[in-house]
Amino acid sequence: MNQFQDLDHIDGVSISSVSANLYNSKRDDLVMFYFRDGANFASVYTNSKIPSENIRWNINQKTKKIFSLMVNTKNANSFTGESGYKSMEKIADLLSKQLTNKQKEDEEHPVKIKPKNIIFGCTGTIGEKFPEEKIKDKIPELIENIKYTQNKYIWMKAALGIMTTDTQPKMSMEICKIGNAEVKIYGIAKGSGMIQPNMATTLAYVFTDADISNEILKKLLKKNLSNTFHAITCDGDTSTNDMVTIFSTSKVKHVKVDSVNSEKINEFDEALNKVLLNLAKRVVADGEGASKFITINVNKCKTEQEAKMIAFSIANSPLVKTAIAGEDPNWGRIIMAIGKTETVINLKRLSIKFGENIIIHNGKIYSNYDETLASEYMQNDNIEINIDIFSGSKNFTAYTMDFTKKYIEINADYRS
Amino acid sequence: MNQFQDLDHIDGVSISSVSANLYNSKRDDLVMFYFRDGANFASVYTNSKIPSENIRWNINQKTKKIFSLMVNTKNANSFTGESGYKSMEKIADLLSKQLTNKQKEDEEHPVKIKPKNIIFGCTGTIGEKFPEEKIKDKIPELIENIKYTQNKYIWMKAALGIMTTDTQPKMSMEICKIGNAEVKIYGIAKGSGMIQPNMATTLAYVFTDADISNEILKKLLKKNLSNTFHAITCDGDTSTNDMVTIFSTSKVKHVKVDSVNSEKINEFDEALNKVLLNLAKRVVADGEGASKFITINVNKCKTEQEAKMIAFSIANSPLVKTAIAGEDPNWGRIIMAIGKTETVINLKRLSIKFGENIIIHNGKIYSNYDETLASEYMQNDNIEINIDIFSGSKNFTAYTMDFTKKYIEINADYRS
Repeated sequence: MNQFQDLDHIDGVSISSVSANLYNSKRDDLVMFYFRDGANFASVYTNSKIPSENIRWNINQKTKKIFSLMVNTKNANSFTGESGYKSMEKIADLLSKQLTNKQKEDEEHPVKIKPKNIIFGCTGTIGEKFPEEKIKDKIPELIENIKYTQNKYIWMKAALGIMTTDTQPKMSMEICKIGNAEVKIYGIAKGSGMIQPNMATTLAYVFTDADISNEILKKLLKKNLSNTFHAITCDGDTSTNDMVTIFSTSKVKHVKVDSVNSEKINEFDEALNKVLLNLAKRVVADGEGASKFITINVNKCKTEQEAKMIAFSIANSPLVKTAIAGEDPNWGRIIMAIGKTETVINLKRLSIKFGENIIIHNGKIYSNYDETLASEYMQNDNIEINIDIFSGSKNFTAYTMDFTKKYIEINADYRS
Repeated sequence: MNQFQDLDHIDGVSISSVSANLYNSKRDDLVMFYFRDGANFASVYTNSKIPSENIRWNINQKTKKIFSLMVNTKNANSFTGESGYKSMEKIADLLSKQLTNKQKEDEEHPVKIKPKNIIFGCTGTIGEKFPEEKIKDKIPELIENIKYTQNKYIWMKAALGIMTTDTQPKMSMEICKIGNAEVKIYGIAKGSGMIQPNMATTLAYVFTDADISNEILKKLLKKNLSNTFHAITCDGDTSTNDMVTIFSTSKVKHVKVDSVNSEKINEFDEALNKVLLNLAKRVVADGEGASKFITINVNKCKTEQEAKMIAFSIANSPLVKTAIAGEDPNWGRIIMAIGKTETVINLKRLSIKFGENIIIHNGKIYSNYDETLASEYMQNDNIEINIDIFSGSKNFTAYTMDFTKKYIEINADYRS
């Protein structure tokens, strides 16, 4: 095993990707993650009131260990009703049986894997019959392909295999310590390509060889989503299929972590945040038709909630996003977006900067404001909007992309 | 006086329009409405936490009668601070003095008009110094132009004079009865042209010769905005300058209306709704780059609030609006927009139709659903999305337009 493989190998995780011909092409569209000794896990799912059938399946499984995550693209298994849910049951049944056989072949102490040990990620078109047979047919091949050591190529193949209309695979990795032991965190994600699926599904899967309980994983995930995946927006829409899951294989032995507030977990906590933030930013940067990546820092608010409301009001405003696409330092639209939130603003202290260009200072147009300089700044690919509210000490940063003609083109011309 | 003039004349209202050269062109950009005997009135203003200086002025005036409404375009007097507010004071001071002189010249019982009897509508660019002098200079000409009888041409000129980037003037008129007396309601509006102003300001002014108190006007206006101007959305953004005002000159004598629930006011109530709805729809239809007018009927909800949330979630979804621009019956995006609201949906009964084309029936794809027919329907200029939730008996209808490449073009390329 070379150094390259070692770095990208998360002990206890196996990945297989195949083409199940869901796209009527040779591209990989079905990815199976297999945890030979099971994995602790925690998930956060879409807030949609109409979740897809795979999300409903996942929520219903009461289990402490996951042995497999299967992800398909092209079909969202959303609005497919009872038949869509039954497909999950049948695939889980078949997959669990065949993985149990694999256990018998390969393991010293084989375990019986049950349907409830399996969860699913689906993304793609809504309302189309779920391709149960095509997927079941590929299970033997997926299992045959299992390798117990991963390398960068295998991760990349998985990141490619879960894509819909993403233009780039999204991966991120961090190494950190828990006590004296080195642990790894590897994440992959798919983003908001919205051509082929009917909407912007976000899937993100994070894997670690650390030994962390389900309960603490849940707390860590929730905590670290708030300023990462919950801080991004492409168009304010919410998918029926969104899913972020973290798996911990417990292969690295380290001091026991018994609380999310324990100092022992600090480094891991930070590394997890980096992985999630990196993936979340890649999702935004690859947003449909995006020409610019926009960071909106709203600082010195009374509450984080208030800072978040203002940041998202700006991030979701079509008028702000089109102005940025046009490289126009149109600060009037920022004022509008701040004004429409349910917040109390002390206008006399408000400050607005595009990058380092001060535009509003103490609630007035800055005396040295130079629109030529601001216009030059707007030509960058990365735009920072910095807002100080001066009503408190809480901050929030949101990430989004601009709205270009290409966005309309992609989303209007789908299926034509 | 011919029949044509008579129909368009609202007794007690005088209108003057001029070019104050605010656009550096000859187009009318300053309109004055003068009520020789004063008018009862009621206003609803923007919810923006950062209202423009003219809105702040209007709110501060405590008066029972308005003698003049002055509306300028090109400059929003927003984020202009103390200097912008003082401009309102100074213009109101000058205008009230010169109108008082006009009273002395023309009236048998002249009254002294005070600054507080004057309100302002402003729309245009944010943050630019308010053109106080240019406007003051035009007051004599505006007063000189006063005619005590209006005709269609004068109303049209006013509707044109308050436009920013609207492509069409917006007017609407209804005649109805209060008791045995015939009264007229005349409304003009400007819409959401968002090129030149920094946002989508909506101004609407309604005039009637009926005799209705400020208190009842207020109730009627609030009541009738909820399913008219509060039911439209172009891009979910809120202007600093939005303003809807109704004026009643009391020139027609009729039975006293002492309650908004009185049967005597029913016909007027309906006519006012028609005028406001007509204007509101014209604002949407003239939305930037709009190629289609979209009506979203959400029916049979538990509460009107719930129906409204669902309707606006659909109306404001860029994914829905781009799909409609592309003439794609992409019902998956409707499901997504319903799903992301904070409502309880009984999926088993949900029904979705595009026009008369049933797509979802009892929560399932309709057995006879024909995508070819639905695609044909989407080629219409007027698209109706009909949704039945079956959780109660409350309905809400929202109106919006599609998102086209032209919208992006207009909003991105402004100032370049």
